[in-house]
Amino acid sequence: MDPFVVAGGDAAGLSAASKCKRESPDRDVIVFEKGQWVSYAHCGTPYFVKGEVEELTNLVSLTPDDVATRDIDLRRGHEVVDVDDAAKTVTVEGPDGQFEQAYGDLLLGTGARAIRSPFDGLDLLGAFTLHGLPDAAAIRAFVDASFDPHEAALGPMDPATLDRFANVPAPEAAAVVGGGYVGVEMAEALTAQGLDVHLFQRGSHLLPPFGPAVGEAVADELADEGVTVHTDTAVEAIEGDGRVERVAYEGGSVSVGAAVVGIGIEPNTALAEAAGADLGDSDAVAVDRYGRTGVDGVYAAGDCAESRNTVSGEPTWVPLGLTANRAGRAIGATVTGDPTPVGDIACTAVVKAFDLGAGRAGFVTEAAAREAGFEPVTETITAGSRSGYYPGGAETTVTLTADRGTGRVLGASVVGADRAAKRIDTVATALDAGHTVAELERLDLAYAPPFSPVWDPILVAAKVLGGSV
Amino acid sequence: MDPFVVAGGDAAGLSAASKCKRESPDRDVIVFEKGQWVSYAHCGTPYFVKGEVEELTNLVSLTPDDVATRDIDLRRGHEVVDVDDAAKTVTVEGPDGQFEQAYGDLLLGTGARAIRSPFDGLDLLGAFTLHGLPDAAAIRAFVDASFDPHEAALGPMDPATLDRFANVPAPEAAAVVGGGYVGVEMAEALTAQGLDVHLFQRGSHLLPPFGPAVGEAVADELADEGVTVHTDTAVEAIEGDGRVERVAYEGGSVSVGAAVVGIGIEPNTALAEAAGADLGDSDAVAVDRYGRTGVDGVYAAGDCAESRNTVSGEPTWVPLGLTANRAGRAIGATVTGDPTPVGDIACTAVVKAFDLGAGRAGFVTEAAAREAGFEPVTETITAGSRSGYYPGGAETTVTLTADRGTGRVLGASVVGADRAAKRIDTVATALDAGHTVAELERLDLAYAPPFSPVWDPILVAAKVLGGSV
Repeated sequence: MDPFVVAGGDAAGLSAASKCKRESPDRDVIVFEKGQWVSYAHCGTPYFVKGEVEELTNLVSLTPDDVATRDIDLRRGHEVVDVDDAAKTVTVEGPDGQFEQAYGDLLLGTGARAIRSPFDGLDLLGAFTLHGLPDAAAIRAFVDASFDPHEAALGPMDPATLDRFANVPAPEAAAVVGGGYVGVEMAEALTAQGLDVHLFQRGSHLLPPFGPAVGEAVADELADEGVTVHTDTAVEAIEGDGRVERVAYEGGSVSVGAAVVGIGIEPNTALAEAAGADLGDSDAVAVDRYGRTGVDGVYAAGDCAESRNTVSGEPTWVPLGLTANRAGRAIGATVTGDPTPVGDIACTAVVKAFDLGAGRAGFVTEAAAREAGFEPVTETITAGSRSGYYPGGAETTVTLTADRGTGRVLGASVVGADRAAKRIDTVATALDAGHTVAELERLDLAYAPPFSPVWDPILVAAKVLGGSV
Repeated sequence: MDPFVVAGGDAAGLSAASKCKRESPDRDVIVFEKGQWVSYAHCGTPYFVKGEVEELTNLVSLTPDDVATRDIDLRRGHEVVDVDDAAKTVTVEGPDGQFEQAYGDLLLGTGARAIRSPFDGLDLLGAFTLHGLPDAAAIRAFVDASFDPHEAALGPMDPATLDRFANVPAPEAAAVVGGGYVGVEMAEALTAQGLDVHLFQRGSHLLPPFGPAVGEAVADELADEGVTVHTDTAVEAIEGDGRVERVAYEGGSVSVGAAVVGIGIEPNTALAEAAGADLGDSDAVAVDRYGRTGVDGVYAAGDCAESRNTVSGEPTWVPLGLTANRAGRAIGATVTGDPTPVGDIACTAVVKAFDLGAGRAGFVTEAAAREAGFEPVTETITAGSRSGYYPGGAETTVTLTADRGTGRVLGASVVGADRAAKRIDTVATALDAGHTVAELERLDLAYAPPFSPVWDPILVAAKVLGGSV
């Protein structure tokens, strides 16, 4: 049988390759990765910038040697540039030129990239996007005066490429453009590095998919920690003479020596389009419940592909780490003859902002739920994280949204300083089950004074919302 | 309409009374409580003994004044001693003698009591059971030399009743008999009070309902904190001359100045039996899914009543706080004409042991699952609580049990030092949904480096067990 070929050696690609090899050790598996890094933790990069993670190589889940031990043929510096689905071959560009590789099954795990538009000034020294380890290393070298690239464990990176960033005085202030995960995490990281941080968000709230209750709580927390939060503020340009000197926005400007732009990512779909695969409304690759594109033998997974929304049943694009790993693993099983669904997504996400943790799942805001065809009703409550008399608890705010007609739970968010974020897993599980608010209210969740009040905050929200559905 | 009468003013009784009054403000609601304390947190008593909760009154959820504000007619010092279900009256003994009270609906919320057998020596000074606030106050007065009952907020307790315990030198060592929740929590509490603690468990593991992986982890944690853990050791007597001097067990004895016996509780069912209600196989009061006994208009809830097991569908008796509150609240709605199920229980429980947290739900051990009619298969895995590179994580051990034929999840336990306990809520929710292992494995649980690895430990367990079902 022709090999299982994977384009892209990150979460989806290497999960698929590993699972395939585990289930069918005799099947040849080839992974082409255009860069030098494989299987690394995007989500950990802000904590490397912060200095909480010391070495860049700490963020690597599997080294090339680990991959080799799994008998996977990993070719770094090789990019798949075309697909001939009739011949079942891919065209690969590598250090020694271009060649054809036959495949039996093909997985497109080409990931996503940071959106660079619509600013001028992204080419100035001190202006960054954050998507991948080289970006993280550059930012760390630029903002952390104590970071010496020639002393650090940088894996395949040449420390000399970082000298441009390391050999200038560290800035005293930075702008973070975009109030999503990356923006919030970078605001924390740069503050921890001693910079005065200005966070710019075009909309009225940070973290829009988490809903206003979380957005406001996180904005308050950032402000308490010294971040200047500019909401309803569109950045117009990053300016300076060779190096970032200021950020201009509607009605003003602020002097900063660095700017990190985290306004979103977009899927890498050129290869999928070359293969003849369809894109969905989200512009990511459309796939069925097994991760199959419409092209025979061609799968897509990870940040380049859509998923099916647990709540609406509709395709959606929410590129996150578990989704990529899970879909890759499922496709790795499917190509060995064990058809395995990639799984729907509840769009579950959690984020840390200094001492706060926040989580979200499903459709949190009424606007989002209405757009998906529901008639939403929503309540926001605040309850303790532990029994009131037990020390160490903190207020926990839950927003719960349900469908008025059916009572079905549509989504929730949670935020608080004491173990709030992972409480969202209860809702993610209930969404998967299609639970109503009444069923959610009757869940037998864990209670003991150090961990929860008798009524977990999720149950309190269900009790209150239960009166309205 | 005749009043809604409640026998017992704790979690179930006052939840029912409050809900009934909220939904039907015109309905008369009378709560008879034989003691002086109402609506207090049993589960918090070890933390009062430990000194982490300063005042006994901190453990009260609703004061008598709060109850009065809700327009509930609360009569403390009144015990319901008989029920005439034909006449729909109860016989009440109060400070002014005995009287009859008519009821429209009657809730039996008579709770449970500590098992005192089978030891000699429980009448010695320094020997205690722990069930209720007076017990907690007595133990605190006995072991904490700095605790002055005449300075403390003791609510309705007369400080003079504690002088017997306070006016003797505090012991240097204590025995805790029983390795369940109360035993483990009291071992921590008494250690924190500076005592050398010996914990005795008749069986081979602490916390048997949590399974051996948790039992061993908790035993190791207790030992690390200085507790001497005696498993497979049956205590034979508490001995001494007027005051506890030692505890004798098979093959030896140990000198201690205090002994706390926490070998379990048993339901208070005398009143239910007087009413003609049936008991179940557990010897607690049998009820239907609305909390109704077989006697017209008579309900039972809380620690005296059975519940329906989510997994097996069979009656079970697991007296815990949320179950009581939830059933009381549901019955309070039902008696106003809004029939509300009390809810099944997943037998979810969590417990703290020093720095460890542990949780359990459903049928954890193969023996328990087999007894319930399943063909169990089980796996125990250990995974990180956070991304490996992110500081502050800890090993998290999960035992997951499923039914071989159907793949249905039957139960799980989890233990670890970093936010492990509440991860059991995911399993409690999945049990309620009837999820299979494959469905559990595909849940979209929350991932971000500070909170979870990409694959939450629950998902890791599902992945591993998935290969066996």
